[in-house]
Amino acid sequence: MPEPLPGIARDQTMLRRVNELSVLSVLRDGVPRVLSEIAERTGLSWRTTSVVTESLEQHGWLASGDADVKRPGRPARRYRFLAEAGHVAGIDIGAHAIGVSIADLAGTIVATHRVKASPRDSADKRLNATQATVRAALAAAGLSEADVWSAAVASTGIIARDGIVTKSVVLPGWTGLDLATPMSDLLGCPVTVANDCNLATLAERWRGHHADTMIYLLTGVRLGTGLIVSGQLHRGSAGAAGEIGEIRELGWHDAAERLAAAAPGQHRDRDRAAALVFAAARHDDTTAVAAVDRFAADVAGGLIAMTLTLDPDLVVIGGSFVHAADLLLPRLRQHLERACPHPPRLEASQLGDEAVGLGAVRLALDAVETRIANLDSTIQLSPAAISGNRLLPASPAQGIPRTLPND
Amino acid sequence: MPEPLPGIARDQTMLRRVNELSVLSVLRDGVPRVLSEIAERTGLSWRTTSVVTESLEQHGWLASGDADVKRPGRPARRYRFLAEAGHVAGIDIGAHAIGVSIADLAGTIVATHRVKASPRDSADKRLNATQATVRAALAAAGLSEADVWSAAVASTGIIARDGIVTKSVVLPGWTGLDLATPMSDLLGCPVTVANDCNLATLAERWRGHHADTMIYLLTGVRLGTGLIVSGQLHRGSAGAAGEIGEIRELGWHDAAERLAAAAPGQHRDRDRAAALVFAAARHDDTTAVAAVDRFAADVAGGLIAMTLTLDPDLVVIGGSFVHAADLLLPRLRQHLERACPHPPRLEASQLGDEAVGLGAVRLALDAVETRIANLDSTIQLSPAAISGNRLLPASPAQGIPRTLPND
Repeated sequence: MPEPLPGIARDQTMLRRVNELSVLSVLRDGVPRVLSEIAERTGLSWRTTSVVTESLEQHGWLASGDADVKRPGRPARRYRFLAEAGHVAGIDIGAHAIGVSIADLAGTIVATHRVKASPRDSADKRLNATQATVRAALAAAGLSEADVWSAAVASTGIIARDGIVTKSVVLPGWTGLDLATPMSDLLGCPVTVANDCNLATLAERWRGHHADTMIYLLTGVRLGTGLIVSGQLHRGSAGAAGEIGEIRELGWHDAAERLAAAAPGQHRDRDRAAALVFAAARHDDTTAVAAVDRFAADVAGGLIAMTLTLDPDLVVIGGSFVHAADLLLPRLRQHLERACPHPPRLEASQLGDEAVGLGAVRLALDAVETRIANLDSTIQLSPAAISGNRLLPASPAQGIPRTLPND
Repeated sequence: MPEPLPGIARDQTMLRRVNELSVLSVLRDGVPRVLSEIAERTGLSWRTTSVVTESLEQHGWLASGDADVKRPGRPARRYRFLAEAGHVAGIDIGAHAIGVSIADLAGTIVATHRVKASPRDSADKRLNATQATVRAALAAAGLSEADVWSAAVASTGIIARDGIVTKSVVLPGWTGLDLATPMSDLLGCPVTVANDCNLATLAERWRGHHADTMIYLLTGVRLGTGLIVSGQLHRGSAGAAGEIGEIRELGWHDAAERLAAAAPGQHRDRDRAAALVFAAARHDDTTAVAAVDRFAADVAGGLIAMTLTLDPDLVVIGGSFVHAADLLLPRLRQHLERACPHPPRLEASQLGDEAVGLGAVRLALDAVETRIANLDSTIQLSPAAISGNRLLPASPAQGIPRTLPND
């Protein structure tokens, strides 16, 4: 056994911080635990666990209470993570709706507010409606702007690292827009911005499917994809990963339109028309079956190219056509098995409409985790120290990055 | 300043190991340094640096000598990493040649031996020739099998995690072959196996281009690709990433053949025929220019699909057609710029024929680094402790993984 090194302050405070983060990560799931359980899970000695846990309680991260009063002897104290010490906001700015979810530090959604929007709304109108929705969601949660430590915005389009929309073909006035600044002005906290499809992918990884490498396909009137590579969201060097639909020959730009055109009668709502086609295909209507076959073949073309590039474990189908997974999955599976030496598993998303907002919550929580992990180890780790980090510096260029770190 | 935690043995030995790894990583580049430089680069105190460095010297990792005798006063001791404490082997089993490189722990190649092979050789003949080449390379380096701590084998085909070739269309008897066992039997050390194109990609990342996300394209009679995602080699869930050429419509399977067919006369060697076509194209021969245009368009089709999937910073062109980069790069650039919203940089590899072998050396070094980092912190970190890890356990299933860890 080598003799201990001479202790120096930097090493000791770093070691203490590592132990604090270790105890926090064990309790982060919200389950109250006694010291012996925390010691076992962290691998720390009972004595170290006790010192670290008591310090975390004293500084506002943990609450404790007596437990197991039914058992004989002195009751053990249980410690639980104070998830309500801080909150984050997940903001989903869609073409047809704007949704805001407020979550505590454990990721539990404490309030959600959603308003309708029109794809034809001006950028100003959409941003004002977003700010009003944030305020309404906070009011519903009984919170104020000052309680939000971090926020993330989901938007359609290609989003650069500084939170600017570099390309959006869906919303008027959206290309070139800075989405981070108006939201950080409102909330006074760092705001990250990411593509909606990427955030739905992050939500799948968080609450849905655990795969090391995964392709998420957003279906509906618009087709989009998001990637998880080695467990991390992969956005690409300019946030343009997963844009396989740019290959016009694959037909992704009008695949849903062609599917909807097979519906009898005239329909302005293509989601509704597509639903009619899927229903007719379930009753073996020849035209509808052919349209679904064609749609699946169009989608498969892009999925095959992405699968051959990445060799993922899993492909998840989400978005508004997920209700037709019974029709789409077997067809897509057949195409992938025919074309790929190693076809991935193919599954339907279980998250529904909330996927994008949930992904924004996850991204905002990740920013808080990063702040906790990066806090100077000579500063006491406390909710006040982390929320004290919440105000944006005067110069955003030197400040906390507003977009997703490069993966 | 928080008071120090009560020291416990586990934390102290782990802290000591972290400090040792920190000093080793600073000296790993081979530059001899005095204590104050090591302290500055590691961020450790002078006292800790001194204790750790002296311990590393005592245990065989470092050598020291007086330096700067021209300066007044007592000369400072300089410490350098003993790269020659151990060696690794990079083994490239190709269709036309077998090459073995022996490198020290700093990655310096100390000997290389290369023999010709024929694509028609049986698997047995090829494996025997490989073992003979390993022995010849070791003899040239003045080393024996026992000096090799780790080896990596590069092979064509899709390679599973256990070192089995799951698919090879190039070499007779190659599919289903276990490449790890015969090499570990010879060398008595853990052997990892990976696809040749993936290893060329790893070499580019190590000695060539630094890009966070990169596509490497191996050109020549065979087209292949390798991926770096978030700084790591991405092999996919079954080692089948980058197999975009499986899409027959892209024409990758016979692109080089069609290029070579444009050469005047009959040629058995298609590499040679292709070189004639490239030369004629440089003299504006219409047929040759059309053939090069067509080849570039074929290659671009696959590169576009991969670029739209990954949004890489960089595409590197390597392999035997790299001598025609003057013709290929501008054409590929044009295709990518036309098709991709964010076209990546496009560059030619500078590594030449050695790329695959160099990548195998890097992979073997990575395995040593992993062993160093994972050594139980209660065991003294010494070359003997690491090379003592070199013998494979009786049951390979429970032992050190023989293939690349999943990325």
